[in-house]
Amino acid sequence: MNRRHFLGAVAATAFAAPGTPRVNSARLRERIEALSVFGRPANGTFADGVSRVAYSDADVAGRRYTMGLMETAGLKPRIDAAGNIFARRAGSDASLPPVLFGSHIDSVPSGGNFDGDLGSLGAIEVIQSLNEAGITTRRPLEIVVWCNEEGYAYNNGIYGSRAAAGHLDPGELDLVWNGVKKSDAIRKVGGNPDRIAEARIKPGSFHCYLELHIEQGGTLEQAGIPIGVVEGIVAIDRYDVEIRGFANHAGTTPMPQRRDALLAASYLTIAVNEIVRREPGAQVGTVGQISVTPNAPNVVPGLVRLTVELRDLAAAKIAELARQIVARAKEIGAETHTEIEVRPAAHHDPALATPEVQKSIEAACAKLGLKSRRLPSGAGHDAQMMATLGSMGMIFVPSVGGISHAPAEFSRWEDCARGVEVLLETVLAWAA
Amino acid sequence: MNRRHFLGAVAATAFAAPGTPRVNSARLRERIEALSVFGRPANGTFADGVSRVAYSDADVAGRRYTMGLMETAGLKPRIDAAGNIFARRAGSDASLPPVLFGSHIDSVPSGGNFDGDLGSLGAIEVIQSLNEAGITTRRPLEIVVWCNEEGYAYNNGIYGSRAAAGHLDPGELDLVWNGVKKSDAIRKVGGNPDRIAEARIKPGSFHCYLELHIEQGGTLEQAGIPIGVVEGIVAIDRYDVEIRGFANHAGTTPMPQRRDALLAASYLTIAVNEIVRREPGAQVGTVGQISVTPNAPNVVPGLVRLTVELRDLAAAKIAELARQIVARAKEIGAETHTEIEVRPAAHHDPALATPEVQKSIEAACAKLGLKSRRLPSGAGHDAQMMATLGSMGMIFVPSVGGISHAPAEFSRWEDCARGVEVLLETVLAWAA
Repeated sequence: MNRRHFLGAVAATAFAAPGTPRVNSARLRERIEALSVFGRPANGTFADGVSRVAYSDADVAGRRYTMGLMETAGLKPRIDAAGNIFARRAGSDASLPPVLFGSHIDSVPSGGNFDGDLGSLGAIEVIQSLNEAGITTRRPLEIVVWCNEEGYAYNNGIYGSRAAAGHLDPGELDLVWNGVKKSDAIRKVGGNPDRIAEARIKPGSFHCYLELHIEQGGTLEQAGIPIGVVEGIVAIDRYDVEIRGFANHAGTTPMPQRRDALLAASYLTIAVNEIVRREPGAQVGTVGQISVTPNAPNVVPGLVRLTVELRDLAAAKIAELARQIVARAKEIGAETHTEIEVRPAAHHDPALATPEVQKSIEAACAKLGLKSRRLPSGAGHDAQMMATLGSMGMIFVPSVGGISHAPAEFSRWEDCARGVEVLLETVLAWAA
Repeated sequence: MNRRHFLGAVAATAFAAPGTPRVNSARLRERIEALSVFGRPANGTFADGVSRVAYSDADVAGRRYTMGLMETAGLKPRIDAAGNIFARRAGSDASLPPVLFGSHIDSVPSGGNFDGDLGSLGAIEVIQSLNEAGITTRRPLEIVVWCNEEGYAYNNGIYGSRAAAGHLDPGELDLVWNGVKKSDAIRKVGGNPDRIAEARIKPGSFHCYLELHIEQGGTLEQAGIPIGVVEGIVAIDRYDVEIRGFANHAGTTPMPQRRDALLAASYLTIAVNEIVRREPGAQVGTVGQISVTPNAPNVVPGLVRLTVELRDLAAAKIAELARQIVARAKEIGAETHTEIEVRPAAHHDPALATPEVQKSIEAACAKLGLKSRRLPSGAGHDAQMMATLGSMGMIFVPSVGGISHAPAEFSRWEDCARGVEVLLETVLAWAA
């Protein structure tokens, strides 16, 4: 832990001399609660969660609020061409690449108030704690709020960090969602799609990327451990499934003559669950989205489209699960007189956290007297894109009941503050 | 078969003297094809089916076309307060109640061009054939095109005939669908919701109700029999099912901890199929409509709503099936950690066809040298409402492949013409 203390850049703060940085947990809570207002359901409370889908008016308002906090912390936020928000705090050696840390503030529809928000507002809290302690690091610090992590808009997540890592899909900016072209949505949040290439970050341009996040699962809470040290982010494979049966009158079509696409989809949904569960391990598989045509009570469903999503740290394992699902789909098609087509729709490689970063997070926990446990991240994060450019590490705090992507998502305030403290210590270690 | 022939009313037709009425099958086909244009998919053909949902612009246009045909047949169509179209041809004895016959012209979305259309345009063809043969019946003849038989709009079918039979639901005219109040939809098609009570038909005000329709199932075609004599219309019970699980992150929620509402819905959909099929008989059961919340690929589904529809001639049989489904739903809820609520949403009593009418249809077939078979109707029809007011009978013609409520719905043109000939003979028998 080499820290360099000096007064120059922080002369205006309340502290006249450098001290031990202290995270202000009350301020952190206040700000998480304040941010929750942008996208809150009408007449709702904090507990009713948030719908702050990327590019929505709520997202724009939340981003404006967050940039205001950056300014309060003495930073000058800038929006890159992709729509990501960056803000830099100078170090004593301007020639060195910065330590980069942050998260996102967009949400899924009817999501919670901690997913992304904690890491974003926690990053600002780190800056403000350093300001108040009168500490300037050797390396510059750069905080980031990534654009459209959830990917509900345009059905393709970790967009902002993908833009930064140069992994946008061909034609991605021309996609239309809810009647709006993606390039126009990017303009709405202050980006410039015509100069999207300028959003790319060169490998080596940051010293280390850190992201504090809620676990979104129940492992830490059940084990009574306040800090998770992420080993890596799981691989994700998504498949689009189309089941073609035959739409026919539900009153006059005898049961044996039906080609019921929803019946076939039901068998397939159960098969996904059974195939994923019958082997040991932490792999998960989900049928989360389904559409039925014509979707009328008195018509045998003729067409079903659904998604199958598989996740595990080992890409080979989910590829094998997919193979089994495809084989079973073929049988179900034959049994139900439907045609079932399973198309690969998206693939995300696993992203392993840098061992040295994992160790430094554990060292920070030891210094703070906090237990920690290594675990995989079942959720995708912007960190996985930063792992393609340089060193990466993630810090998890417990999610009560393992609930996330839902209004009841909650992390105890003391756990949130502990997570920011670990982030602060780890930032200091890497900024030295 | 007592027919009274006289010249007066039909002096203007091409036939100078009364003869044997002949159905013009080419004209019938031409008109069914012409009607198919209203609601045809863009750039489609006849084979692409029709979306002529009640109260739509296509429905209004199709009704206007049909009323034009009535005028061509020398009739003066009138729209009743409910939006049904009636047209009367005078008989020689104006003191007698008329023989009433017809069907509907609205369709399900992506439906076919025979369901309802054949019986409606066939009724006009009967009038025109009589005109051309110079035949006036003793009783008046009244043809009808019922409004909103399918019930896709406002999720409640055989609306027009229910209004005529006095079986509207309380508050039904205040329902809102696609942003339009039902009373305004009724105004759009020329009805007057303020005077809806005037649409009621008194018991005894018609001598007999007849409806020609496609079978919508494959029984007649498979047996090679051109005419079906309907024994009755099945009872229908519809249930609305709500499955409450918990929406959670699809990457971080371990499989055993999930409360996946779509997984529960899949087990229930299969259970409905198995329970309905495991007993002998012609009963059918369908899960045709489903909605999933939040319906995102990366969220475990938290809430599912779906419909279960059961049909059989015996109401007690489907009540027993429902009992078994509810019992199984309880088990599925326990197994999947979801709450499953099954609510009765609609009930239609079975409606038996009048034995004397069935016999007269058989007699007409015998006269025309056509084989016939008695069979139940698995589909609901406006005829079931007319059965609550007086004598009722239905004539079925074969559906190729048993396909209905789908673009590929088709009945051979010669079978359509035979059906109209049987209708004509039966009308003459009852109008004597």
